[in-house]
Amino acid sequence: MNHREEVTCKILTEKVKKGVSWQQVADLIGKSKEWTTAGCLGQMTFTSEQAEKIGELFDLDENDVAWLQVVPYKGSLPESVPTDPLIYRFYELVNVYGTTIKSLIHEEFGDGIMSAIDFSMDIQRENNPAGDRVNIVLSGKFLPYKSY
Amino acid sequence: MNHREEVTCKILTEKVKKGVSWQQVADLIGKSKEWTTAGCLGQMTFTSEQAEKIGELFDLDENDVAWLQVVPYKGSLPESVPTDPLIYRFYELVNVYGTTIKSLIHEEFGDGIMSAIDFSMDIQRENNPAGDRVNIVLSGKFLPYKSY
Amino acid sequence: MNHREEVTCKILTEKVKKGVSWQQVADLIGKSKEWTTAGCLGQMTFTSEQAEKIGELFDLDENDVAWLQVVPYKGSLPESVPTDPLIYRFYELVNVYGTTIKSLIHEEFGDGIMSAIDFSMDIQRENNPAGDRVNIVLSGKFLPYKSY
Amino acid sequence: MNHREEVTCKILTEKVKKGVSWQQVADLIGKSKEWTTAGCLGQMTFTSEQAEKIGELFDLDENDVAWLQVVPYKGSLPESVPTDPLIYRFYELVNVYGTTIKSLIHEEFGDGIMSAIDFSMDIQRENNPAGDRVNIVLSGKFLPYKSY
Amino acid sequence: MNHREEVTCKILTEKVKKGVSWQQVADLIGKSKEWTTAGCLGQMTFTSEQAEKIGELFDLDENDVAWLQVVPYKGSLPESVPTDPLIYRFYELVNVYGTTIKSLIHEEFGDGIMSAIDFSMDIQRENNPAGDRVNIVLSGKFLPYKSY
Amino acid sequence: MNHREEVTCKILTEKVKKGVSWQQVADLIGKSKEWTTAGCLGQMTFTSEQAEKIGELFDLDENDVAWLQVVPYKGSLPESVPTDPLIYRFYELVNVYGTTIKSLIHEEFGDGIMSAIDFSMDIQRENNPAGDRVNIVLSGKFLPYKSY
Amino acid sequence: MNHREEVTCKILTEKVKKGVSWQQVADLIGKSKEWTTAGCLGQMTFTSEQAEKIGELFDLDENDVAWLQVVPYKGSLPESVPTDPLIYRFYELVNVYGTTIKSLIHEEFGDGIMSAIDFSMDIQRENNPAGDRVNIVLSGKFLPYKSY
Amino acid sequence: MNHREEVTCKILTEKVKKGVSWQQVADLIGKSKEWTTAGCLGQMTFTSEQAEKIGELFDLDENDVAWLQVVPYKGSLPESVPTDPLIYRFYELVNVYGTTIKSLIHEEFGDGIMSAIDFSMDIQRENNPAGDRVNIVLSGKFLPYKSY
Amino acid sequence: MNHREEVTCKILTEKVKKGVSWQQVADLIGKSKEWTTAGCLGQMTFTSEQAEKIGELFDLDENDVAWLQVVPYKGSLPESVPTDPLIYRFYELVNVYGTTIKSLIHEEFGDGIMSAIDFSMDIQRENNPAGDRVNIVLSGKFLPYKSY
Amino acid sequence: MNHREEVTCKILTEKVKKGVSWQQVADLIGKSKEWTTAGCLGQMTFTSEQAEKIGELFDLDENDVAWLQVVPYKGSLPESVPTDPLIYRFYELVNVYGTTIKSLIHEEFGDGIMSAIDFSMDIQRENNPAGDRVNIVLSGKFLPYKSY
Repeated sequence: MNHREEVTCKILTEKVKKGVSWQQVADLIGKSKEWTTAGCLGQMTFTSEQAEKIGELFDLDENDVAWLQVVPYKGSLPESVPTDPLIYRFYELVNVYGTTIKSLIHEEFGDGIMSAIDFSMDIQRENNPAGDRVNIVLSGKFLPYKSY
Repeated sequence: MNHREEVTCKILTEKVKKGVSWQQVADLIGKSKEWTTAGCLGQMTFTSEQAEKIGELFDLDENDVAWLQVVPYKGSLPESVPTDPLIYRFYELVNVYGTTIKSLIHEEFGDGIMSAIDFSMDIQRENNPAGDRVNIVLSGKFLPYKSY
Repeated sequence: MNHREEVTCKILTEKVKKGVSWQQVADLIGKSKEWTTAGCLGQMTFTSEQAEKIGELFDLDENDVAWLQVVPYKGSLPESVPTDPLIYRFYELVNVYGTTIKSLIHEEFGDGIMSAIDFSMDIQRENNPAGDRVNIVLSGKFLPYKSY
Repeated sequence: MNHREEVTCKILTEKVKKGVSWQQVADLIGKSKEWTTAGCLGQMTFTSEQAEKIGELFDLDENDVAWLQVVPYKGSLPESVPTDPLIYRFYELVNVYGTTIKSLIHEEFGDGIMSAIDFSMDIQRENNPAGDRVNIVLSGKFLPYKSY
Repeated sequence: MNHREEVTCKILTEKVKKGVSWQQVADLIGKSKEWTTAGCLGQMTFTSEQAEKIGELFDLDENDVAWLQVVPYKGSLPESVPTDPLIYRFYELVNVYGTTIKSLIHEEFGDGIMSAIDFSMDIQRENNPAGDRVNIVLSGKFLPYKSY
Repeated sequence: MNHREEVTCKILTEKVKKGVSWQQVADLIGKSKEWTTAGCLGQMTFTSEQAEKIGELFDLDENDVAWLQVVPYKGSLPESVPTDPLIYRFYELVNVYGTTIKSLIHEEFGDGIMSAIDFSMDIQRENNPAGDRVNIVLSGKFLPYKSY
Repeated sequence: MNHREEVTCKILTEKVKKGVSWQQVADLIGKSKEWTTAGCLGQMTFTSEQAEKIGELFDLDENDVAWLQVVPYKGSLPESVPTDPLIYRFYELVNVYGTTIKSLIHEEFGDGIMSAIDFSMDIQRENNPAGDRVNIVLSGKFLPYKSY
Repeated sequence: MNHREEVTCKILTEKVKKGVSWQQVADLIGKSKEWTTAGCLGQMTFTSEQAEKIGELFDLDENDVAWLQVVPYKGSLPESVPTDPLIYRFYELVNVYGTTIKSLIHEEFGDGIMSAIDFSMDIQRENNPAGDRVNIVLSGKFLPYKSY
Repeated sequence: MNHREEVTCKILTEKVKKGVSWQQVADLIGKSKEWTTAGCLGQMTFTSEQAEKIGELFDLDENDVAWLQVVPYKGSLPESVPTDPLIYRFYELVNVYGTTIKSLIHEEFGDGIMSAIDFSMDIQRENNPAGDRVNIVLSGKFLPYKSY
Repeated sequence: MNHREEVTCKILTEKVKKGVSWQQVADLIGKSKEWTTAGCLGQMTFTSEQAEKIGELFDLDENDVAWLQVVPYKGSLPESVPTDPLIYRFYELVNVYGTTIKSLIHEEFGDGIMSAIDFSMDIQRENNPAGDRVNIVLSGKFLPYKSY
């Protein structure tokens, strides 16, 4: 386990102990709950100011706070095909709808990709009498392949 | 290659020849472009009426039309980690944000999953002076794990 | 090993020491032996009341009891093809009978899946002169794919 | 593709053309729909009488009928982790509940396995106001490990 | 490493220290050297009497002795294709002769398997002027697939 | 499919058509049923005399007969972990008993292997009131590692 | 093999027959040899004008020319770890220098990636008395991760 | 974790604590930032003089300094397909452009490879009004296959 | 199968038909049997003169002869761990002796590799009363890693 | 990490500390440097006399010395396709030349293998004005497959 992964573990343990929600952490640093959670789970890089606040909240030491500001080796899953049912459903969507998404984006935009870097995500509950729904909006800049 | 995959190939070849768009196919059968494309790419099951129309459009024979109404073995990708850059970006999002999505949904809804079956998807272009964006809305029913 | 996995280990060690059966744990919290065992093995989420009782039974500390109430990263097997003979037989059933189950469910219900979330399982011994049998009843809600 | 797999393909194509159900095939040979389907999908071995009837129903030639009586190389899935959502749910059950099933069977029977050979399966629809359910009963002889 | 694996490690370390042979352990508990070794290597389940004797021999504590009586998660190899040359030769035999064994057993017995549970193994040295030979007798009950 | 694999396919098809047993093929060329079957399934190399006889029996052409005399690329299974239940049981035996076999051979012979080349195999039915058994005798020369 | 892969095969066969170089193809359509080659090998999308010229050069039919204008499923290698020695060396560079490149780019630019889409490549021979060298310049836009 | 990997960890932790840049480490030992970083990340071998200086900078003990001079087992990535988005882009380039690079180098140089050993790399920022770019120059000696 | 692989197949079929040895092919083109065989098996590139002679010997057409002069995608094995016993033994040697070879070459030469490109191989029979031996001499230029 | 692997680690650490060469270890026990190194790296089994001397040289305790005399689980590489460039080159040779070696040995000896057990290896430096070379002689007994 590298140092950043240890910081992730400490945060998770403290979060359970203290009973804080991700929304509260997000409010503390003034960012969205999606980006903040990803950062606390070791996927994003915090500014020193953000890192200090998070460190204080979760009783991290100075060294840990420094690591929160170092760009991490990203990838949050222990296997290439995730076993967790919730996460697997998203893998399944990529598998079942992958060629559909590709075909529709190319038809609209031409050759290129939807960026996963210039990207944001928003997760909301939709109340619904037939059972509440999870709504997730993915927004990524289209990046065209150009000839050269 | 099984029979349904052969039908997918025929549709793709005819689509290139005839220059129809997925939106046009969707309009023909009165469904969304997302679901229609997934069906034509071998992931969904058509009603006999839908299958007839698609068969006519793409010069399919009677047998092919029958296969469009049989539930397919789903999964549209040739590898478990997709090599195509556009599709890979979605795999990467699952990898980088998977634990984030899991954590936020559980915090909001408790233990359970977002259904990939009672599910719909909408892909739109967002005009943006800093570069147009792809916006994808995923909507799935929340299914709770219950104790028994 | 994450914190929840450590709690699973503690439970297993204490269970061997104390000689309690899963049925006894299930009776303690008033749930089925199947769901209770899955929860103790790190696959389900307990209510605070259930967690307290389990914690007491197995001498868990306060922190461990908190983790029993956090939704775990699910998946109980160390490999994608299980090596243990008892568990492998179930993998084999999926492999040998997978397309059969798929074909029969689709013929009866149309396109869709049997839910693994809105699901329950019951394991019973059937006394039989030709050798006792294991009877397992799987019951899952049918979830239809719908067009949109 | 080996000869038996070609017979499976022929059966599937003829079944779609003729619109017969698996139950009808089962009735024809006087066996359960589960075993009959598995046989037609290349996983079981037919007697010459059964093979003749199936060959007549699906317009198979004499050679194909002979192959239906040869023990096949079993395994019906193209990947070790199935991509099809319906079949994957069963893989997921093995993954999430595998250690639970193991633990409960051992507690009841001691060391051994549930046979996947001396085995039968029954798939039924359960009408249910909250949504119909798929009920699957797995019944396998318990085979004990003995010391020697 | 789970608790049973730790017990296996302890046994191996003590065995090297004390210089006992597997045959001696087998004699101690009155079982074959094959079954006894498999048990000590974490693949079989001992009775309390056997476990006590083994615990005494290898200086195990009470807890370890309890674990020897718990059914283990079986599978003794760290990879799906074993790297150790001696063990690989057996994997190679399965690979080279697998379809041969299958074909001959089916020709003699019909569809079914040779049980790996109702099974025993005997390993003997055969003195031979051209170089001594290892003779291994595998004996497993034939289990027929039956139609239902 | 390479040329030798095509010859294997032809032999299997003709064998089904003609209804010959492997024992009959073995008798024809004066070898054991085990070695003969392995050869016909593309794992062994025939002499020209043996190849001629087999070619005649199975209506092979001159070219096919030549290929039977060329050393084949060995390995008879389509996956590294076999899906067929009969063959898997042998894989399982290697997995469960692998370290046991290794340990016992080393204790008897020192460091080295049991040859899979200077090797023979004999498969027999053992009549048994509790259910007939498959008995397989593996005999391989012990090859010692020597220091140099 | 999909339709675009068939076009790639045709181009390669015609290129060998006609003895044209990639530079000549590039000159014909007025693009770099790197991009043109990637396009002909099935990784890029041509305009109709480019496709017409390439079709004429390589005797492609109208249908093939249409496929050159469809965005392909990208990925040119048959395995995830390439076996070809020339291509493997680049895989090795990613493996040996991957964390170095990551660390240096992050130190210079902060968190983000070098785009593989807004990207160009230039391959040149450098004459060198100690042995000529291959010089490859990779140029990709830096895309920063931003918080949101 | 082997000893050299422990030294890499120590260096990374000290580097974060002290806030030194790789360029500063490189200046200290008079080498390029690319080679120096690769060495500190456990991929290259230092001379005793270089190792001493690095040891002093990062508070390594004598033993660690000795290990910096031992040739390491190379390979810096935890998976064969890297999950980190920055590093994956390079893997993607090998995948998308691999056959292109191969084809162009062979056309220019004949059969052979670009060395990954007699190799150097230079990473630079290119200021660009449309967004700064990462420019990477790879330079490797061409090594021809010769007949013999 | 690409075009070069088809040429390999043709050569193998003709070689069996005509009964020529690799040594004879090598003599025909004046090269070693090792390099010539590798070339005929699709791993090396022939000059036009060599290709013509081989084409004549094996009745190849003009197109095939052209492909023999195109640099092939190298790699002759269908799996990453070879199943063929003869080839596996070499894989095993790499596995068992890999770190030994690495350690001894580094001790003698410092950091670097033995080239697999500037390389030759010689296979000879050594007559030996205890059983003839295969002697293989591998000779590769040492290529040092240099700092830069 | 098992006990023998720990002994390997200790030896490596002591070797770096003491600055002994493998040749010196080999001289100490009167064996070749190749076999001695393989033994110290956990692949071979020492006699008690050899183990004592090695234990003394590397300050091993009595227990460690005992483990050096136990046959190890062989295989020295952490992945099935090695990432280290020096070791990979040997894997590449097996991949590129595997079928060549197979074909030439079979042509000379008939069906069989080159033993990796009755085997020795010799690694030498060849001084060469065009760059020194690594020469490796592999010598293994030919073991014929025989019919039975």
